[in-house]
Amino acid sequence: MNRNDQQAYDRGTSLYSPDGRIYQVEYAREAVKRGAPSVGVRTPDGVVLAAQSRAGSSLMVQESIEKLHKLDDHVGAASAGHVADARKLVDFARRESQTNRLRYGEPIGIETLTKEITDLIQENTQRGGTRPYGAALLIGGIDSTGPRLFGTDPSGTPHEWKAVAIGGGRETIQGHLEEEYRPDLDLDAGVELAVNALLTELEEVEAADLSVAVVSEDGYRDLTVDEVDEHLDERATSDGEEDE
Amino acid sequence: MNRNDQQAYDRGTSLYSPDGRIYQVEYAREAVKRGAPSVGVRTPDGVVLAAQSRAGSSLMVQESIEKLHKLDDHVGAASAGHVADARKLVDFARRESQTNRLRYGEPIGIETLTKEITDLIQENTQRGGTRPYGAALLIGGIDSTGPRLFGTDPSGTPHEWKAVAIGGGRETIQGHLEEEYRPDLDLDAGVELAVNALLTELEEVEAADLSVAVVSEDGYRDLTVDEVDEHLDERATSDGEEDE
Amino acid sequence: MNRNDQQAYDRGTSLYSPDGRIYQVEYAREAVKRGAPSVGVRTPDGVVLAAQSRAGSSLMVQESIEKLHKLDDHVGAASAGHVADARKLVDFARRESQTNRLRYGEPIGIETLTKEITDLIQENTQRGGTRPYGAALLIGGIDSTGPRLFGTDPSGTPHEWKAVAIGGGRETIQGHLEEEYRPDLDLDAGVELAVNALLTELEEVEAADLSVAVVSEDGYRDLTVDEVDEHLDERATSDGEEDE
Amino acid sequence: MNRNDQQAYDRGTSLYSPDGRIYQVEYAREAVKRGAPSVGVRTPDGVVLAAQSRAGSSLMVQESIEKLHKLDDHVGAASAGHVADARKLVDFARRESQTNRLRYGEPIGIETLTKEITDLIQENTQRGGTRPYGAALLIGGIDSTGPRLFGTDPSGTPHEWKAVAIGGGRETIQGHLEEEYRPDLDLDAGVELAVNALLTELEEVEAADLSVAVVSEDGYRDLTVDEVDEHLDERATSDGEEDE
Amino acid sequence: MNRNDQQAYDRGTSLYSPDGRIYQVEYAREAVKRGAPSVGVRTPDGVVLAAQSRAGSSLMVQESIEKLHKLDDHVGAASAGHVADARKLVDFARRESQTNRLRYGEPIGIETLTKEITDLIQENTQRGGTRPYGAALLIGGIDSTGPRLFGTDPSGTPHEWKAVAIGGGRETIQGHLEEEYRPDLDLDAGVELAVNALLTELEEVEAADLSVAVVSEDGYRDLTVDEVDEHLDERATSDGEEDE
Amino acid sequence: MNRNDQQAYDRGTSLYSPDGRIYQVEYAREAVKRGAPSVGVRTPDGVVLAAQSRAGSSLMVQESIEKLHKLDDHVGAASAGHVADARKLVDFARRESQTNRLRYGEPIGIETLTKEITDLIQENTQRGGTRPYGAALLIGGIDSTGPRLFGTDPSGTPHEWKAVAIGGGRETIQGHLEEEYRPDLDLDAGVELAVNALLTELEEVEAADLSVAVVSEDGYRDLTVDEVDEHLDERATSDGEEDE
Amino acid sequence: MNRNDQQAYDRGTSLYSPDGRIYQVEYAREAVKRGAPSVGVRTPDGVVLAAQSRAGSSLMVQESIEKLHKLDDHVGAASAGHVADARKLVDFARRESQTNRLRYGEPIGIETLTKEITDLIQENTQRGGTRPYGAALLIGGIDSTGPRLFGTDPSGTPHEWKAVAIGGGRETIQGHLEEEYRPDLDLDAGVELAVNALLTELEEVEAADLSVAVVSEDGYRDLTVDEVDEHLDERATSDGEEDE
Repeated sequence: MNRNDQQAYDRGTSLYSPDGRIYQVEYAREAVKRGAPSVGVRTPDGVVLAAQSRAGSSLMVQESIEKLHKLDDHVGAASAGHVADARKLVDFARRESQTNRLRYGEPIGIETLTKEITDLIQENTQRGGTRPYGAALLIGGIDSTGPRLFGTDPSGTPHEWKAVAIGGGRETIQGHLEEEYRPDLDLDAGVELAVNALLTELEEVEAADLSVAVVSEDGYRDLTVDEVDEHLDERATSDGEEDE
Repeated sequence: MNRNDQQAYDRGTSLYSPDGRIYQVEYAREAVKRGAPSVGVRTPDGVVLAAQSRAGSSLMVQESIEKLHKLDDHVGAASAGHVADARKLVDFARRESQTNRLRYGEPIGIETLTKEITDLIQENTQRGGTRPYGAALLIGGIDSTGPRLFGTDPSGTPHEWKAVAIGGGRETIQGHLEEEYRPDLDLDAGVELAVNALLTELEEVEAADLSVAVVSEDGYRDLTVDEVDEHLDERATSDGEEDE
Repeated sequence: MNRNDQQAYDRGTSLYSPDGRIYQVEYAREAVKRGAPSVGVRTPDGVVLAAQSRAGSSLMVQESIEKLHKLDDHVGAASAGHVADARKLVDFARRESQTNRLRYGEPIGIETLTKEITDLIQENTQRGGTRPYGAALLIGGIDSTGPRLFGTDPSGTPHEWKAVAIGGGRETIQGHLEEEYRPDLDLDAGVELAVNALLTELEEVEAADLSVAVVSEDGYRDLTVDEVDEHLDERATSDGEEDE
Repeated sequence: MNRNDQQAYDRGTSLYSPDGRIYQVEYAREAVKRGAPSVGVRTPDGVVLAAQSRAGSSLMVQESIEKLHKLDDHVGAASAGHVADARKLVDFARRESQTNRLRYGEPIGIETLTKEITDLIQENTQRGGTRPYGAALLIGGIDSTGPRLFGTDPSGTPHEWKAVAIGGGRETIQGHLEEEYRPDLDLDAGVELAVNALLTELEEVEAADLSVAVVSEDGYRDLTVDEVDEHLDERATSDGEEDE
Repeated sequence: MNRNDQQAYDRGTSLYSPDGRIYQVEYAREAVKRGAPSVGVRTPDGVVLAAQSRAGSSLMVQESIEKLHKLDDHVGAASAGHVADARKLVDFARRESQTNRLRYGEPIGIETLTKEITDLIQENTQRGGTRPYGAALLIGGIDSTGPRLFGTDPSGTPHEWKAVAIGGGRETIQGHLEEEYRPDLDLDAGVELAVNALLTELEEVEAADLSVAVVSEDGYRDLTVDEVDEHLDERATSDGEEDE
Repeated sequence: MNRNDQQAYDRGTSLYSPDGRIYQVEYAREAVKRGAPSVGVRTPDGVVLAAQSRAGSSLMVQESIEKLHKLDDHVGAASAGHVADARKLVDFARRESQTNRLRYGEPIGIETLTKEITDLIQENTQRGGTRPYGAALLIGGIDSTGPRLFGTDPSGTPHEWKAVAIGGGRETIQGHLEEEYRPDLDLDAGVELAVNALLTELEEVEAADLSVAVVSEDGYRDLTVDEVDEHLDERATSDGEEDE
Repeated sequence: MNRNDQQAYDRGTSLYSPDGRIYQVEYAREAVKRGAPSVGVRTPDGVVLAAQSRAGSSLMVQESIEKLHKLDDHVGAASAGHVADARKLVDFARRESQTNRLRYGEPIGIETLTKEITDLIQENTQRGGTRPYGAALLIGGIDSTGPRLFGTDPSGTPHEWKAVAIGGGRETIQGHLEEEYRPDLDLDAGVELAVNALLTELEEVEAADLSVAVVSEDGYRDLTVDEVDEHLDERATSDGEEDE
């Protein structure tokens, strides 16, 4: 289908093209690719979430570039794409988590939470008068079934992953993950894998440009800049080793 | 009707073309064909549902490619097409099943359930401001009338089937079913027929790329990868035999 | 009015053309003609409803091609056109019939029921944001005024008939009815007339491809395949006689 | 204003043309002209309503071509134009009549009833998202002020008439009425005038193709086919006399 | 601004042109000019309302051409333009008058009533999805401040007048009023001025083609045809005198 | 941005142009300029409001050209632009003033009142389906903070002024005010300044063509024609002096 | 993407371009740049807000050019862009602050308040029928976490800053801030930095053309013109020094 034909069908979410595509959802996927990348890695001991969060100005407070979000004690999210849209989804997820605790007296299941979010996302791909959310989320946490890692996209499709990347440069980063992932990684190795995967798309990097969090049996925890820095150092070393 | 004329009438669900077609519904059928295929087979002992569910990445958790869905103890569904749309229909079906149990104290009839779903689907083909569901479902189960297998399409038309395929490659797979189906198949032979039908569209396949479920008097049950693998092995053997 | 001019006025139900036509209603009539035909015949003893219901696949369950619909004990309907739209109208008719029984303690009049349906149909021809129903119904039954047969069309106009055809090939079938109808037909002869009328549009036919129902003092009853087959046999014989 | 300019302003009821016209209302008037004609004649003893109601098929039940409608014991209507639209207006008029009886314990005034109807019609000429009613009504009856005859049009303007025609061939029939009407007609002569006026537009006619009703002090009454036939016979005779 | 540019901004009430005009309101003013003219004259003893109300057919009942409307005992209106729109405004005015009596136990002020009407009119010039009222009203009456005469236009602007014309031929008639009006006219001279002003636009006229009403301390009163006729006779005489 | 590009972005209030302008608001400002001018002058003793209110016809009652509006005992408004829109804003302001008295038992602050009005105006610049108010107001009054004078524009921006003009010829009049304004003017000199400023845009003028009001500690008061006339006389004299 | 292609996707907030951009949000950013600049500086002792507020006329009351807004005792805002839009956001922020005090008995957190505002802003970027807010805010205050400074943009993205500029000339001013900012500035030096940053974009300036406020432990306080003037004087001196 050439560009002119495509333009005939890409002006609304309530419209299929003759070959059955919903272009506005595909364009929303492009919005996700415009954002900086995020990565998730599942290990037997917990889930690692990591994201590039480099500030555009030296005067911007690094922590305000919110790419990682604690949703509840036992679950967090990494986002990519349109920042304000991602925040809406994160707010929704936090409310759903709280509601679940109030209603059932226990933490929400990671899969359940993911599907509440994708239901919301799907609704914006079917009605007219709105646009799909231009953001993707990685939802990682631990529940009674163990560590779980899910991804959402602008169509509202949930998938579970062992390790996954979203946002700009996703293909390269996912390739790195597919090569290097081992199911028996400990949490620390998971952090290293996540950081290294992100670095495939970054030329120069400081620890402050990366956000990393882990969700283990001890709950959701953001790594400090120093902790991230250690992994960068290890990498510098291991890079050197790899070069040999 | 040529392409330009068609474009004049294909921009909304609330519009007929001069020859009485609703193009957006036809385009939604194309969305179903873009998805991987699913198959249903009815036998005297129960209904078999099977689907291709090959993951796009080695890191994606196979089980999260939800093509088969338990709706209630006695009924399940296989889907094809737009994944998030299918999930909406499955959620609706689960709620309807639960409501029926609460209200009437008994499991919902398979035909009744199917028609609740197609009523919902039809509404999205008549109002403006929305698009038809880009997904088809196979609803299989056992009720007081015995094993039943129904299919839905994006127009909201329900049909009952002895054996049926939806999604990509539907014509080839349905042709295989029409040739091979016998009404006296036992459940195991039904599984084999369903798997073999799907394989007509797949070049290389592993058990993990297929999802199979049966609904018998014992209720809905997903087959394990090993169980699926056995059928693939049998096929390898029988293929050899057929080659002679 | 040429095609370009027509296109200027055919994009919505809330729009007249300069010569006072509502094109979307006329296009909905084309949708009815795209469906298989149905026939109704009124006799002094009751009403006959008959329809072509040939399945597109040998694996489709014949009975699920719903062309005839019991609405209440004393009234049924035959449909033609967009299947999902027809189902909506049939559901509405069933609810109206039940409501009437609950409210007034007696079966709904056939004319009253027909007009409830056409009121619903008309509303979809006047408001924007929706499309007309792409289906026609024949409503046949017996009430305190005797056997009655009504037809509806996508404009919402009700008409009463002695015998009538809707759907694909309507003109030919109606011509046959006009030639052969006699007001003193008994029910059996009514069935034969209905079947023969449908056969004017069908080359090869089996009993299973036809659905026939009668509404007499004994209520609504679907004929069995065997009963339909007998009429086909008679016809084969009488055809031979006619040829002489 | 030429055709192209006109097309710029004729797509909705909420739009004036630069010369202050509302084209959709004018097109709705064309819809009225597409229908068969109806006639009303006021006499000192009551009002006559008459309409052409020739069936399109010999199998259509003549009475179901509803052109004359009893609204209440003392008032009826004749319609022309879009049949389903006219039925909506007639239903509305019947409900208004009943409501008036319930609320005030007396029959509704003919002028009051007419204006309730034209208020409803006007609303559909001002809001977007709908189309004007494509039907005209003649409302004839007797109330405390004596026999009254009103006409409505798609703009919602009410007018009172001594004698009037609506629908196809209106100009010719109205011309006949203007020539032949005398204020001292008795009811029977009123019927004859109404029938003769309709016949100016009909080449061959049978009594069954005409519907005639009178509203006198005895209330609303449909004439039988035989009664109509007598007037046709008289006419045949008087035509002969006129030819001399 | 040329015609093409104008067309870019004249399709809705919720749109300004670049030079700050609201074309749909201006077109609605054209709709007023398409109607027959009405005139109002204020005298120290009361207000005169007069209108041309010539019937299009000899069989139309003259009184049903409603150009003058009693709104309450002490106030009436003359209308011009789209008849059904004017009726809506008149109905609204009557309800407002009645509400005022119920709520405050006294007749509504003429200025208050006028402004209630223009508020309603204004709303239809600002929202999308509707069109401005295509009618103008003259509101004449007597309240505690003496005789008052107001005019409304499709923009919803109220103005008070000593004497004023609306509708077709407004300019000529208003010119006549400006030349001939004297503030000390008695009611009878006011009637004569109103009639003569209307006659500047009419070639041949009968008393029955004119409607005249006066609102004095004795309340609203329609003049009889004979009373109107007298003024026409006087005019014939005075015309002769003027010719000398 | 040339005219064609502008046309792409000027059709609605819910649309920015690529350079961040909202054209419909700018066009509404043109609507204000189409109206006659109004002027406000703040003095230590109170606020003067003045406006041109020349009637289009000698028969129009001068007072009905409402350019000055008493809003409450202590505050008034002068308007320019679309008259009916201005009346809506004035009605709103009066209701807000009354509500404030009822709720808080004291007169509303001039700034508070102004901001209530601009909030209303702003809403019509952001939602689709409506147009901005085509009117500007000057709000002048005295509250606990002393004399205050505010202006509103169609964007909903409030500004406080020492002296200000709105409407047609605004630039010239404002220029006069900037040259002649002195903060220590007494009320009488304020009236003279306001009148003289208006006269810069008027060739011949009578006192009756001007409306002037003052809001002082004694409350809102309209000047009589005689009072206005005195100021015109003074001016004639001072003009003569200035000519020397 | 060239201009024509861009025009195909820039007409609404509910539309993505093929490369995933939402043009109406980007155009709203242009609206912010059309406004005069504002600056915020965070110091250990509090936050400084400053803005250019030069009046367009010598008669406009300087204080009414509201660029700085007290939101609550402990928090204020500086705005840039569309003035009426900014006022809406400021009103919303004030209500949220009050609600928080009522509900929780304590001042609202600066970050919490910011996110309430950006949630509101985001909603206007996703729904059709409205436009994004054409204004940016700087929110500065002190809460239990110390001095905080946040910025919002038309997409609804919140960021925290040490020092930041919004509005016209933002790039130059931000450059100045990045060069001159030191984290250990005292409040007075913060004021000087803010003023100097604004002056990089202003040729001639008086103290009255600038608005400055500080939020310290003593709460929100607007600087007097004299206080601002002192900083200008210091600058004149230091400028001289810099010139050497």
